[in-house]
Amino acid sequence: MPAEEFRVEAHRVADWVAAYRERVAGFPVRARVRPGEVAARIPDAPPDEPEPIAGILRDLDEIVLPGLTHWNHPGFLAYFPSSSSAPGVLAEFVIAGLGINAMLWRTSPAATELEERMVEWLRRAVGLPDGFRGIILDTASTASFPALLAAREATGLEVRERGLAGRHDIGRLTIYVSEQAHSSLEKAAIAAGLGRSGVRRIATDEAYRMDVTDLAATIRKDREAGHRPVMVCATLGTTSTGSVDPASAIADVADREGVWFHVDAAYAGPAAMLPELRPRFDGWERADSIVLNPHKWMGTPMDCSVLLFRRPETFRASLALTPEYLRSGVGGVTNLMDYGLALGRRFRALKLWFLFRSFGTDGLRRMLREHVRLARSFAERIEADDGFELAAPLSFGTVCFRATVEGGDAEALNRELLEAVNEEGRVFLSDTELEGRFTLRLSVGSVHTTAEDVEAAYESLGRARGALTRGEAGH
Amino acid sequence: MPAEEFRVEAHRVADWVAAYRERVAGFPVRARVRPGEVAARIPDAPPDEPEPIAGILRDLDEIVLPGLTHWNHPGFLAYFPSSSSAPGVLAEFVIAGLGINAMLWRTSPAATELEERMVEWLRRAVGLPDGFRGIILDTASTASFPALLAAREATGLEVRERGLAGRHDIGRLTIYVSEQAHSSLEKAAIAAGLGRSGVRRIATDEAYRMDVTDLAATIRKDREAGHRPVMVCATLGTTSTGSVDPASAIADVADREGVWFHVDAAYAGPAAMLPELRPRFDGWERADSIVLNPHKWMGTPMDCSVLLFRRPETFRASLALTPEYLRSGVGGVTNLMDYGLALGRRFRALKLWFLFRSFGTDGLRRMLREHVRLARSFAERIEADDGFELAAPLSFGTVCFRATVEGGDAEALNRELLEAVNEEGRVFLSDTELEGRFTLRLSVGSVHTTAEDVEAAYESLGRARGALTRGEAGH
Repeated sequence: MPAEEFRVEAHRVADWVAAYRERVAGFPVRARVRPGEVAARIPDAPPDEPEPIAGILRDLDEIVLPGLTHWNHPGFLAYFPSSSSAPGVLAEFVIAGLGINAMLWRTSPAATELEERMVEWLRRAVGLPDGFRGIILDTASTASFPALLAAREATGLEVRERGLAGRHDIGRLTIYVSEQAHSSLEKAAIAAGLGRSGVRRIATDEAYRMDVTDLAATIRKDREAGHRPVMVCATLGTTSTGSVDPASAIADVADREGVWFHVDAAYAGPAAMLPELRPRFDGWERADSIVLNPHKWMGTPMDCSVLLFRRPETFRASLALTPEYLRSGVGGVTNLMDYGLALGRRFRALKLWFLFRSFGTDGLRRMLREHVRLARSFAERIEADDGFELAAPLSFGTVCFRATVEGGDAEALNRELLEAVNEEGRVFLSDTELEGRFTLRLSVGSVHTTAEDVEAAYESLGRARGALTRGEAGH
Repeated sequence: MPAEEFRVEAHRVADWVAAYRERVAGFPVRARVRPGEVAARIPDAPPDEPEPIAGILRDLDEIVLPGLTHWNHPGFLAYFPSSSSAPGVLAEFVIAGLGINAMLWRTSPAATELEERMVEWLRRAVGLPDGFRGIILDTASTASFPALLAAREATGLEVRERGLAGRHDIGRLTIYVSEQAHSSLEKAAIAAGLGRSGVRRIATDEAYRMDVTDLAATIRKDREAGHRPVMVCATLGTTSTGSVDPASAIADVADREGVWFHVDAAYAGPAAMLPELRPRFDGWERADSIVLNPHKWMGTPMDCSVLLFRRPETFRASLALTPEYLRSGVGGVTNLMDYGLALGRRFRALKLWFLFRSFGTDGLRRMLREHVRLARSFAERIEADDGFELAAPLSFGTVCFRATVEGGDAEALNRELLEAVNEEGRVFLSDTELEGRFTLRLSVGSVHTTAEDVEAAYESLGRARGALTRGEAGH
């Protein structure tokens, strides 16, 4: 495409993206299509001849948009919202336009150096001490994985070189997470060859926090059985309820046992920017590695997950390999591809640079504080409403709750309620299971969400509950 | 940022990106900064107060651009070029603007269905038979990894559940790649717990193709030693020379041995769109899994790596885990997060959609054919020039060569030559090692590269060689 044509098309797309952001609130949040409906409208084979961008944008409107669940709708209160702030979107455009690869320092020195600086900005913003370095990866799952590989290598078992299979000198390798920990840790353990059976799910207390006595006892039992504890993971902000494991006490256990201490703060980590919430993170400064996702609660578009760590050399020892064709070049520099599985690396640091500068840390704190306030006000309405109850303590921006029912089937009511609210489309909520019970979840974390949207959620729930308990709806 | 302000800023950035594409050819391709030079110009801490986008763009110009190696410079002929075609850049802007997460079908049905369709378009375009499905991941390293995990599970050793460590019922697990295979396979083996010592590097012939007799013999020896062969990998388009392993013969061995057959066509795969090059891929249709990177030779911006496979159920069995909070919803649909390590997934399918439609397959074929032609004409000039020699057979768009020297130190001359050419900055070449010898590499694969750029490379090499052999330069 000639330069002048690119300019014209770039402005066309700028208008399209700007218009999408203006009209997104008018769509139902959750897609209403049936399986296969979108695919049926896309040809089986690519076209031979070129088509104009305008035609593609038209199909984007007509075929794709109706099939999207709109993560940038202000009523998106499901899962953990991941929203695209304005500076984040603009940064992505620049990232694609530059199109560099930050695998080695010399493949774009500024990308490596800006990335190191942005990790440093984040470290300072959340109040972690000197001595943490890090890299920007795509998602928490991908970021936790190299942490586990580093932990595996830190055992001294020479796993990088000798592997795990067919060795008679090692027992089973085990990791320790709470019952509420994210499945990505289990996935990492499977991938790393520890197996699901190497994952110990530690009990949690009434507020869904890891029971440290159970942790210590489980490690002891494993040692007696000849197993080798590799990693203990504290989750600060669990996925279901936002609960916070006692990091200091867990760090004590990890220290005593000489086991790698990992912190999953993928969701809640940014909240450490707020002085009033910082105490919840006490102890994370003792971690060997920490994962924190700016694409969750800070407004960078997916993907942007930061892995912080103390011992870069252990990460390199666990994974780094430099192929011949990348070996020459400048010494004494950081080559970021050595700290993760992917070799090619996008210039994600630009997203954090645009974000931090465009919001300022004051602006980010204001946003985080407002989200916590909105979640609290929603939780208070739920508590005050006879038709609902909280299902877990409010934590950060996440509220777990249920509709109450006398004598009826609470499970069915709550499932139907969620479906009715999501089908209505003004907001989008999700669910989880707590103590075997179906539980509704509302999480405030999108840059677009305001008091009005949280109010709309409460109203939609009330309407749906009324209709369902009067028997006006249902299946 | 209010909607109207976003629109203004989006147009500002559109102008910036368009202007960058117009002026990129005026920069030296390779960055000229010294280590730490960029970092020194970035504050230690993030600002408290917001700054305007215009100010960030100014710093992008003044601080970042001088520190970039410009992957979208038409003279970028190093590594494998990964360039940002116009439709690819525009698609990235849309992807960020939509900001959806394609982890589950229901988190954006259109994203999953478009992704399945785009994999289908690619499959047809490169002439693979029905029966391949696939997903879009970020990079080849990340895509090869789940293929190895599926292969590991396909052994029937229940690795997902039981892991590899502390088991007395299994021997060492081994994989087979050529000496010329990419390091990502070795990295995958390390990550998966097979260890470096589980990687068998099979000898190659004079054209750097895997020696199938050595492959069969090595597998036999490993079986005799009680090891368990897990995966055989053919590389179609190796990183150093572009050489093509004999896929059919390797498939025969894999069949006979009952071992997973993986094909790494990350670089050269798109060339299968050309009927005249399709025969080089004979046998890949028998693969269990294939990796092919549209971000290398098709012009999507990084990242876009496609993993094709035949047995989706094996992939799911090796890795899939659905946490409670994602468990409810529609049945009978594909949840793409089950096929890779990452849970969050960007809407990368849009890049392929924009690309295929904006170029048309005819346009893509024209581009690929021109790149091959340019590489051939460069190789012919090298062959005809007494001062240079080819170091490997020309393959696809990649030429390996050396400056010749009588009686002098060829190694030093070639190192100095590469440095002089790259320092001059009109083009950027890379190097590799072949049979212990330092070798120069030129790879044509950027959407921006024309005959003029390849000619400039030849001229720059001639100038530098003249200066060095006359003793005018050197260290």
